Amino acid sequence: MPGAMTGQLEKRTIMQIQEVLSAYHKDLQEVEKCLNRHISSEVKLIPKVSHHLIDSGGKRFRPLLHLICASLCGYQSDNRFPMAAVMEFIHTATLLHDDVIDQAIMRRGKTSANNIWGNAASVLVGDFLYSKSFTLMTEIGNMQILKMMSDVTNIMSEGEVFQLVKCGDFNLTEEEYLTIIRKKTAVLLSAACSSGAILASASEDKVAALAHFGLKIGMAFQMTDDTLDYMAKEKDFGKAIGKDLEEGKMTLPLIYALKKAKPAERKIIKENV
Amino acid sequence: MPGAMTGQLEKRTIMQIQEVLSAYHKDLQEVEKCLNRHISSEVKLIPKVSHHLIDSGGKRFRPLLHLICASLCGYQSDNRFPMAAVMEFIHTATLLHDDVIDQAIMRRGKTSANNIWGNAASVLVGDFLYSKSFTLMTEIGNMQILKMMSDVTNIMSEGEVFQLVKCGDFNLTEEEYLTIIRKKTAVLLSAACSSGAILASASEDKVAALAHFGLKIGMAFQMTDDTLDYMAKEKDFGKAIGKDLEEGKMTLPLIYALKKAKPAERKIIKENV
Repeated sequence: MPGAMTGQLEKRTIMQIQEVLSAYHKDLQEVEKCLNRHISSEVKLIPKVSHHLIDSGGKRFRPLLHLICASLCGYQSDNRFPMAAVMEFIHTATLLHDDVIDQAIMRRGKTSANNIWGNAASVLVGDFLYSKSFTLMTEIGNMQILKMMSDVTNIMSEGEVFQLVKCGDFNLTEEEYLTIIRKKTAVLLSAACSSGAILASASEDKVAALAHFGLKIGMAFQMTDDTLDYMAKEKDFGKAIGKDLEEGKMTLPLIYALKKAKPAERKIIKENV
Repeated sequence: MPGAMTGQLEKRTIMQIQEVLSAYHKDLQEVEKCLNRHISSEVKLIPKVSHHLIDSGGKRFRPLLHLICASLCGYQSDNRFPMAAVMEFIHTATLLHDDVIDQAIMRRGKTSANNIWGNAASVLVGDFLYSKSFTLMTEIGNMQILKMMSDVTNIMSEGEVFQLVKCGDFNLTEEEYLTIIRKKTAVLLSAACSSGAILASASEDKVAALAHFGLKIGMAFQMTDDTLDYMAKEKDFGKAIGKDLEEGKMTLPLIYALKKAKPAERKIIKENV
């Protein structure tokens, strides 16, 4: 595609994103209020660690997906705000635990929480946010949502353990990689979408369609993220570049590189991980 | 109390405990089946880590309390088994996370999970067991139970963070200590008891009475555990002795020792933590 055309396309995409963000500006402000209200605790380290991550330029992608899908299904109740907050809380909890697991130094362009307050605080505040999410959902009071979200968080931890087990395994297949990213990332984006339909009491077909839509976005999102780990500039990416290769985390770019490499090249890659 | 009398009392207590265990033997076997069924996963590391801890001689104290209280309120449904399993899963999840936080070497007389499989596996399998607990509760389908248990897990993490913040703080008051153990330990034992009454649709008074009973047991249990950390033999205790002092964890024996110590003695204690 010629450069000028790519530029035009990018410009149009950015304008469309801004249009969506502006349409949901008020709703997103309500979600922010909800986030702030529910990370308060008499134990001051909890809001401190939570705010460090939650205020550090997260895109609120999951809450936004929820709000859009709820609105698409005609849902107008204020319950969409705590439900959107749940998506962000669960996402934040996984980031806190992930950073302990990966011994991360940076997250979203800032020093990671585990690097400032230690592993213990990150593990425990992650636990706090997980449980707070379930408290919020019991207040919403929809058993189908609770069932889905407990399954989702369970699948997410399963995906993370699977990734852990397969770390450094050069025989990881593309199919196994797809299982990992579906479990660790895509199911939450899927739930962000379908929960909008469930709260709206939409038909099973609509719930399934939005779940499918979210799942595909999640897969694409994680593949992009894994590719950026090889290609992005650190200041744009907000976290260290090349970490996956360094840690022996098998992602799609590496799987493809190994597939296309000559035996001698493959040997070099393997020796350097 | 004369030695012979203590011996008699101990013997009677042990006989009474054996009587209870034998009365609930069949029910506890059902709970075991439930535990085994729900820690299965295609990701084999998950049952491996879970079994390591769950099969390592836990007393099933929380499940037993639940079964007894459910029975006391006339509850006969099979839902008491997954509910009892939930108590053990949540307890196990906290042990997995605690051992990461405390960098524990031993647990229940065995090498701790974090020491064998690393922090990452312990954090993630803990997350797996937490979320599995909520899945089991959505299957039971009682919203009051879900509300209580999400609050309980939230309070537990708050208690753990409070303990973390106060680590090494020699000014910790007895009242603050009591808050910590209530939050990190007693609320779960309280829930183990009251959930029996809730499932049985017992009156609010009965639910509150059993919650209160469980809370008191929990407080006594943690105080005993904290005292044994100073007094027990390692082979009886199942974990390293003197860890609390070593880590600067302020527990009741230390609070009392500091209170009773002369300034010179206090100085020695503080310098050695």
